[in-house]
Amino acid sequence: MDKLTKCPANYVPLTPLTFIKRAAIVYTNRTSVIYAGVRFTWRQTYQRCCRLASSLRSLNIVKNDVISVLAPNVPALYEMHFAVPMAGAVLNAINTRLDAKNIANILHHSEAKVFFVDYQYVPLASEALRLLVADLEHTSAANYAMPLVIVIDDIHKPTGVRLGKLEYEQLIHHGDPRYFGEEVENEWDSIALNYTSGTTSAPKGVVYSHRGAFLSTMSLIQGWEMSTEPVYMWSLPMFHCNGWTFTWGVAARGGTNVCIRNTSASEMYQAISHHKVTHMCCAPIVFNILLEAKPDERREITSKVNILTGGAPPPPSLLEKMENLGFNVMHAYGLTEATGPALVCEWQTKWNHLSQDHQAKLKSRQGVGILTLSDFDVKIKETMESVPSDGKTMGEIVLRGSSIMKGYLKDEKETEKAFHKGWFFTGDVGVIHPDGYLEIKDRSKDVIISGGENISSVELESVLFKHPSILEAAVVAMPHPRWGESPCAFVVLKTTTENVTEDDILKHCRKNMPKFMVPKKVEFLKELPKTGTGKIQKMELRKIAASFVISTKTNKSWINKVHRDQTWYHQDEEKVLAMSRL
Amino acid sequence: MDKLTKCPANYVPLTPLTFIKRAAIVYTNRTSVIYAGVRFTWRQTYQRCCRLASSLRSLNIVKNDVISVLAPNVPALYEMHFAVPMAGAVLNAINTRLDAKNIANILHHSEAKVFFVDYQYVPLASEALRLLVADLEHTSAANYAMPLVIVIDDIHKPTGVRLGKLEYEQLIHHGDPRYFGEEVENEWDSIALNYTSGTTSAPKGVVYSHRGAFLSTMSLIQGWEMSTEPVYMWSLPMFHCNGWTFTWGVAARGGTNVCIRNTSASEMYQAISHHKVTHMCCAPIVFNILLEAKPDERREITSKVNILTGGAPPPPSLLEKMENLGFNVMHAYGLTEATGPALVCEWQTKWNHLSQDHQAKLKSRQGVGILTLSDFDVKIKETMESVPSDGKTMGEIVLRGSSIMKGYLKDEKETEKAFHKGWFFTGDVGVIHPDGYLEIKDRSKDVIISGGENISSVELESVLFKHPSILEAAVVAMPHPRWGESPCAFVVLKTTTENVTEDDILKHCRKNMPKFMVPKKVEFLKELPKTGTGKIQKMELRKIAASFVISTKTNKSWINKVHRDQTWYHQDEEKVLAMSRL
Repeated sequence: MDKLTKCPANYVPLTPLTFIKRAAIVYTNRTSVIYAGVRFTWRQTYQRCCRLASSLRSLNIVKNDVISVLAPNVPALYEMHFAVPMAGAVLNAINTRLDAKNIANILHHSEAKVFFVDYQYVPLASEALRLLVADLEHTSAANYAMPLVIVIDDIHKPTGVRLGKLEYEQLIHHGDPRYFGEEVENEWDSIALNYTSGTTSAPKGVVYSHRGAFLSTMSLIQGWEMSTEPVYMWSLPMFHCNGWTFTWGVAARGGTNVCIRNTSASEMYQAISHHKVTHMCCAPIVFNILLEAKPDERREITSKVNILTGGAPPPPSLLEKMENLGFNVMHAYGLTEATGPALVCEWQTKWNHLSQDHQAKLKSRQGVGILTLSDFDVKIKETMESVPSDGKTMGEIVLRGSSIMKGYLKDEKETEKAFHKGWFFTGDVGVIHPDGYLEIKDRSKDVIISGGENISSVELESVLFKHPSILEAAVVAMPHPRWGESPCAFVVLKTTTENVTEDDILKHCRKNMPKFMVPKKVEFLKELPKTGTGKIQKMELRKIAASFVISTKTNKSWINKVHRDQTWYHQDEEKVLAMSRL
Repeated sequence: MDKLTKCPANYVPLTPLTFIKRAAIVYTNRTSVIYAGVRFTWRQTYQRCCRLASSLRSLNIVKNDVISVLAPNVPALYEMHFAVPMAGAVLNAINTRLDAKNIANILHHSEAKVFFVDYQYVPLASEALRLLVADLEHTSAANYAMPLVIVIDDIHKPTGVRLGKLEYEQLIHHGDPRYFGEEVENEWDSIALNYTSGTTSAPKGVVYSHRGAFLSTMSLIQGWEMSTEPVYMWSLPMFHCNGWTFTWGVAARGGTNVCIRNTSASEMYQAISHHKVTHMCCAPIVFNILLEAKPDERREITSKVNILTGGAPPPPSLLEKMENLGFNVMHAYGLTEATGPALVCEWQTKWNHLSQDHQAKLKSRQGVGILTLSDFDVKIKETMESVPSDGKTMGEIVLRGSSIMKGYLKDEKETEKAFHKGWFFTGDVGVIHPDGYLEIKDRSKDVIISGGENISSVELESVLFKHPSILEAAVVAMPHPRWGESPCAFVVLKTTTENVTEDDILKHCRKNMPKFMVPKKVEFLKELPKTGTGKIQKMELRKIAASFVISTKTNKSWINKVHRDQTWYHQDEEKVLAMSRL
């Protein structure tokens, strides 16, 4: 047995690059990418990737070099998911909602060799580059040179906006369509670098291997049962865990990528209706955009649209509304470190007979491990014991498998901390139900312990969401002289709301939860404080909540008791994918 | 980048054992296995596997030991697919249609430590063991002891038949349900050993790795779009490439295994109707069993049954008939060395608009590589050049990827021969169509070269199959003084046929193919000569064909001009899966 050795015929490194090469052969003339008036076939997309990869090589890009990009969901960003690793390099798609300082830090930390910038983000990138120059001047160990900047103009309607001398299409034009790409020598080689924002600590550079990316992609197209020829709308930013691996996955399935620059209600409805979208991913906040669209923004949905959602646990009531609108929602749980979704709420046919309300509750669970995740569990970190499958006992969610990141770039300490006794510790708190399905209860730091009782702020938020006037809600711990901690609720009301008081909300709570869980205080905000990636900054809320006890007359300069003008909601692209953990 | 190393949290060996552990958690109380009156849940199946594995360990089974089994598709054989590798051992499922001599050779060559025997095959196994004893007495290097024999009685209705002292259920009973299985240390470790019959050479022991088995399984459940909770009927023997990996695949999807001892029309129709079968695999010859079933054997099919077929290329006319009966057929191509199907004919929605006849033709193609097959191609071996994608130019089908076997056990020469310049050479001849889809044209040795024209015997057979009176057909080369070679057709007629002459067949051929392709001779046989695995022995037919030229009065003692009594067809289980290459 032991004499049978690996050879190039029977041991080929696992890599998502297989998918694009295969797509060029199998799905040759099928539409690969649609963006406004632009359409490509899989043969064209593959050739554009080959051209770009060969141009990158001729720019002296070599193995392990980082290529950063700041762009919305345009074809160029999609192509880079293949072209960059084809050149042997590592793709770093930067969150477009970060500020210049953060972007400069990422370019510096990753030592990016090339920096692609969509024309829309030229002002932001210029500022980041200015900060980076200043940074480098102050760094003694300045063996890192500034990145080569290449602008990505709009491919549908070129604007002429430039930053530096090179434009993306020039690289495509001068590239070699017959360039075959570098062979992936080792499937452990790096393919992508994604920075986490992290609600609790500094950004970290998460590195994926070709192996991990390949296996996650395989698992997710399978776990979501993405069948042949999907029409996939890019409502999820590709910079979120490489679009939860569906950048690679749509190529694997020979699907069509519908690229959209913004996730406004009208743009999404138009794309869904016009291109007969079958699949989309998004954070639950996008549900609100779709649900609250004005009549003239809406279009009839004739195709069956499957939604994979993740990030914040979606309140069952929201899920129910989406189903009523004709969407088929699947819920996933994951994080950057797990190459996107690691668990999906796999539907069981026996649930079909349950009430819609009950179904929505089951759907809001995080579910079970995808096929390439070897193990998931909920453990007490101190003892490494698994919690019982009782749906009640909380512990930390731990994962294990080949789709878990290689580690944090240049951060041995954090890498070691994340990998503990053979498991990756997510920092999230969950329970296991008797049927083996996992349900997230909270971020580690968001459990409220009141009089010895654990209160999940997520659970409490889920009740608040059921109130017809509440748009957003966040619950944090507030110090309490008697109970140690008490829940404090921060809520943002809907535009249509009239005269809702704290008492109204509390009444609703008392009706829908055990007494000990009812918030001791409800505070109305104009908007919730959020990070660059749209995560609610619970730390900020905790600070405010803390001040309530010391003095009820805290400084609330940015707080407006009831905010009645929320038209910004549909206008401000920054808010669109808020709350996403992924 | 290079500092990020593998650890138990982010690098877990790929193995199908993940699927059964996951099934026990995720699909706990769902039905895993049905056999006659016996039903198990996934928790039970997992526990039975744990028990069996622990019993094997206590019988001193260690890593790389071979466990052989001679059984039809009963629950025990299914369980062994997990229990044997859980004990660290290698599963060798032996073709039940082999003779005692062949079985003895396999036990000897594989050095099997344990030999499980289904009660039905006790006489055959006894004879094989007798031959093995004789073999060992004559072998000087007799460091191989006889295997421990364990009988598998019928679990539904125990018969009391024994061979040796141990019975399968005793091992289950005395095993430890909490035994967790040996950790798979290296995904390259061996999981299974399958002997090929091979129409052209001696049997070879094909070894699979855990990695290869895992990846093939993932690809096939995905390529066939096997969605959640499938009801899978075991019409394909599990000893054929471990049931084309669906032994592991059904666990991955949390499906139900419907085990049947025989593939008679009545047993299959009953299972399909009663258990609402959704998926089954089989060779095209099984189509005939279903199509020619008597009225009282038939049952109404209310579920949609997906069939994955392979082995001999199915004639389009046969595919069309199956579709009309309500089956949804997908066609695959593979071989033992590729862990079963390596290419599937992935359906394209644009084909939906074509005529049924045209659709059937497209379906009969072998298609495109599964997702974990890195590459497939058709090459001219001498020059290693790829043939043009013209649907005409023939070459040898070559494959490359991690689902290709580790090699042939104890056969360096054949292993080296199979792996040539980075590819696995299948020995099969094919073409690539302009759309990238592969179509097999012949086994390497079955191309008939007549007057400089290549004639594919498969193509010719496909025309013959369209004749309403023909049940089976095989075409081989016959020496010809003018053209070098000429096609010679051997046909078996249907039972209902009356007075069909050679002229009738030739007329049909002339109407349906170019003149140069028309057979120079049609010979009627009672049955076609076949190997133990049901492959048509074209070598035998070639010998007969060769004699036609030397003398037309050849010895045809076993040939009966027209055979009018074919009731054996439905009775003889040996014939059921004939023609299967897999």
